[in-house]
Amino acid sequence: MTDRVILATRNAHKVDEVRRILAAHRLDVEIVPLPDDAPDVPETESTFAGNALLKARAIAEITGMPAIADDSGLCVDALNGMPGVLSARWAGGHGDDAANLELVLGQMADVPDGRRGAQFVCAAAWVVPGEREQFVEGVLEGTLARAPRGTNGFGYDPIFVPGGYALTTAELRPEEKDAISHRGQAFRALAQVMASR
Amino acid sequence: MTDRVILATRNAHKVDEVRRILAAHRLDVEIVPLPDDAPDVPETESTFAGNALLKARAIAEITGMPAIADDSGLCVDALNGMPGVLSARWAGGHGDDAANLELVLGQMADVPDGRRGAQFVCAAAWVVPGEREQFVEGVLEGTLARAPRGTNGFGYDPIFVPGGYALTTAELRPEEKDAISHRGQAFRALAQVMASR
Repeated sequence: MTDRVILATRNAHKVDEVRRILAAHRLDVEIVPLPDDAPDVPETESTFAGNALLKARAIAEITGMPAIADDSGLCVDALNGMPGVLSARWAGGHGDDAANLELVLGQMADVPDGRRGAQFVCAAAWVVPGEREQFVEGVLEGTLARAPRGTNGFGYDPIFVPGGYALTTAELRPEEKDAISHRGQAFRALAQVMASR
Repeated sequence: MTDRVILATRNAHKVDEVRRILAAHRLDVEIVPLPDDAPDVPETESTFAGNALLKARAIAEITGMPAIADDSGLCVDALNGMPGVLSARWAGGHGDDAANLELVLGQMADVPDGRRGAQFVCAAAWVVPGEREQFVEGVLEGTLARAPRGTNGFGYDPIFVPGGYALTTAELRPEEKDAISHRGQAFRALAQVMASR
């Protein structure tokens, strides 16, 4: 029997990535998009794990179905770990990738090469109503480029260079990125938990 | 004899504030503005103290005169202490007070009242070429308002409410602000050091 799980996000890029990651894992789970009439869940927690759990719980409760949610972002050493949970709204509005990325580049303009360390972090939560809650976290270490490069992916991918790589995550092929990415790590771990249910 | 000291800043608001604070202290020191042809000193350090010392050293070396410099900013708890040393260029450009303030308000839009703590921090450095270097730091604790209020001061003054006050530092009279402010604390401490020379 195929499990049906709601993915608590309106971000089409995230749905694609999660489907791709779980499909590569041959997990027999059908990802159901968020119903159009589901309310927006404000991400008011101060940690990725807190927000992922908040979203998964809210959607599981509303729909009565198992739900998974991810909260992820870019943590920049020279910005004391920010944008962090504010990654998607760093420039003020929500989800304006170009503005967010330009702002981080501007804030980092005078930061020298040796101090441009950053991490991509993804927390993923799985909530089965009245049954169980689980969350996992994945981290990808890297550095920030000085200008955007590449057209794959989304968010801060064009300025993030994983440790040991010369390319940004927007220049890597999607499967290459998934193999090392924060979201790949988190959802593979979650898939194992779901498979052992 | 009146000591002459160069204040290493191009920010006219800072010159005014420092003159006002030192005058109230009856310190016999003449604040000389930065010469027009002095080069810009990039603030590349990751701490306020580091940048203040960097600027004071550079200007003392170029002019051969005693120099004081301040580096100051807003540290927001929910932003892990940022904008910090990037306060003046938080929105990307340099010194756009309105854009910086709007950006912080936008980033803090979903942060609830109990988590809006912030500090104004000022590090001030005094460098006498070939003789001595000294730095001091002042901190003002407070919280962030949800909209700008008041027209005094500069920078983030319109959104900063000192602990125990209902008004923002832009609503306080200048002398009231100086009595408690980060810059008041730092420059009064520096004035004592300079007086005991």
